[in-house]
Amino acid sequence: MHILIIGAAGMVGRKLTDRLVADGGIGGKALDALTLVDVIPPVAPAGFTGKVATLTVDLSQPGEAEKLIAARPDMIFHLAAIVSGEAEADFEKGYRINLDGTRYLFEAVRREGQKAPYRPRLVFTSSIAVFGAPFPAKIDDTFLSTPLTSYGTQKAIGELLLSDYSRRGFFDGIGIRLPTICIRPGKPNKAASGFFSNILREPLVGIEAVLPVAEEVRHWHASPRAAVGFLMHAATIDLEKVGPRRNLSLPGLSATVGEQIEALRRVAGEKAAKLIRREPDAVIQKIVAGWPSDFNPARALSLGFRAENSFDEIIRVHIEDELGGKIA
Amino acid sequence: MHILIIGAAGMVGRKLTDRLVADGGIGGKALDALTLVDVIPPVAPAGFTGKVATLTVDLSQPGEAEKLIAARPDMIFHLAAIVSGEAEADFEKGYRINLDGTRYLFEAVRREGQKAPYRPRLVFTSSIAVFGAPFPAKIDDTFLSTPLTSYGTQKAIGELLLSDYSRRGFFDGIGIRLPTICIRPGKPNKAASGFFSNILREPLVGIEAVLPVAEEVRHWHASPRAAVGFLMHAATIDLEKVGPRRNLSLPGLSATVGEQIEALRRVAGEKAAKLIRREPDAVIQKIVAGWPSDFNPARALSLGFRAENSFDEIIRVHIEDELGGKIA
Repeated sequence: MHILIIGAAGMVGRKLTDRLVADGGIGGKALDALTLVDVIPPVAPAGFTGKVATLTVDLSQPGEAEKLIAARPDMIFHLAAIVSGEAEADFEKGYRINLDGTRYLFEAVRREGQKAPYRPRLVFTSSIAVFGAPFPAKIDDTFLSTPLTSYGTQKAIGELLLSDYSRRGFFDGIGIRLPTICIRPGKPNKAASGFFSNILREPLVGIEAVLPVAEEVRHWHASPRAAVGFLMHAATIDLEKVGPRRNLSLPGLSATVGEQIEALRRVAGEKAAKLIRREPDAVIQKIVAGWPSDFNPARALSLGFRAENSFDEIIRVHIEDELGGKIA
Repeated sequence: MHILIIGAAGMVGRKLTDRLVADGGIGGKALDALTLVDVIPPVAPAGFTGKVATLTVDLSQPGEAEKLIAARPDMIFHLAAIVSGEAEADFEKGYRINLDGTRYLFEAVRREGQKAPYRPRLVFTSSIAVFGAPFPAKIDDTFLSTPLTSYGTQKAIGELLLSDYSRRGFFDGIGIRLPTICIRPGKPNKAASGFFSNILREPLVGIEAVLPVAEEVRHWHASPRAAVGFLMHAATIDLEKVGPRRNLSLPGLSATVGEQIEALRRVAGEKAAKLIRREPDAVIQKIVAGWPSDFNPARALSLGFRAENSFDEIIRVHIEDELGGKIA
């Protein structure tokens, strides 16, 4: 089986690649070839004996998607996007990368299928940013998409296209709305959501972290390991069971910042919790207030998608996967 | 005030033009100039003393939208689309006209605003086809869009773009999901929804009409006069009151085919009702089964949109507006 990962250099893309290589295949089929694509050079995975191509490609340039699809990969993971903040700051770039890039990919698959039958599995990462306030207490599977950002708009359009192209039989698509990934490995960044990870990741290695919002703020989380599990499950699920509504809000853990800190205290002690410095930031507070905080993802649960059940578990996943099982 | 109507040669476009000319303006402002655009030549309205341009334009051709917007109309009605059946039969044409054409228009407005401040009112006709079965008994204002046709997908994408461009301040947009228009004037056509009008319009002038579905079939209707009223209201409504969710399911009348026939009998007698010939058509029955049948359009009602309250009223509107007040 030949798998194409677009957005392979990102955090989720790298972890997905590692998992596919570690498993040696997916859904009972051996992994023979891997094509890793990103706007920055992807790294070939260690320990993979199959065919690997690592390509630096901007999917939003006309003709690039066709070249990737000419190899007729059996499975496509479309993870590539510019993030919310950048799509908001640069309107044209956001639409070019997140909308046109996605449409070029979908069109390339459709046109390849006109030459000879071709119907790959296509997994698209969407986002809870397709939802816009005001929200019900829990967002269920029939709540409308009214994004309040250009990024959310672009993802919502991607979802609609994915459903229609799937209904038409051009590919077997599934879109998954990832919760906020926590604990995100790496350094603190300027994303408005960064603090959800910073306040756990940094204290776990003895470093101070800044909390810009109140402890009452509630949000929707899943670990990087859970995210990879979602992608693997989406790639192999029986789409007959999913039916025509191909975009799913995934399971996650709804927790307040206070609950995050309590879990940190339980797992790593008071000395870790003390490294969180309160520094209220009105701008971040306002942004976060417009985000979803809780879901009732009944369909995804019934289809077998699973996330963590406690923040203790999310923290332990991080310690196992990123810190070699040890904390400071 | 300069008004641009795209899709001006269609039934709703012509009635809207006539209404604007009859009123001499809109929202307290005089109508000075009217630009009527369609893929077939629009007809200049009788009795209008302002400036009129009638243009045959395909909005999906790059550059055409820019030419229309260069004149900086104060108000834009975007009614143009290829219909559901055609968008389903010709995938590429549907996306070209209904998606690319709409996006070119929105982009042209945005780019015009980059030259000098420009923020017209833009009214977009969407459709209840943005919804896909299974439905609740009544579709409310927070029910998700999961279209089951390419046409519905294209309209749903137009809605998302309209919201984002409005939020960004590129134009003051509002999207309205029209109910099925009944009684549609003219000749019977091959649209799957045609019979809803045919079974009333034809008997009212003494002609037989075919009913392809059971009398229990329920659907969502508004008259052509109500449709024009919706457009006029959308063009002048205070958008602050509408808020960020700029696409509205409009009021209509939920009625079964049996209730339509009862109303015909009350208004035009048994001899009219007898002209309906039952000829079940499995294909049409299946299509219609996937359509919404009832709504709870609370937001649109609270914002002052109004439709008919009975089918007797819908029939009387047709008799007044199309038959000079007389029936056969």
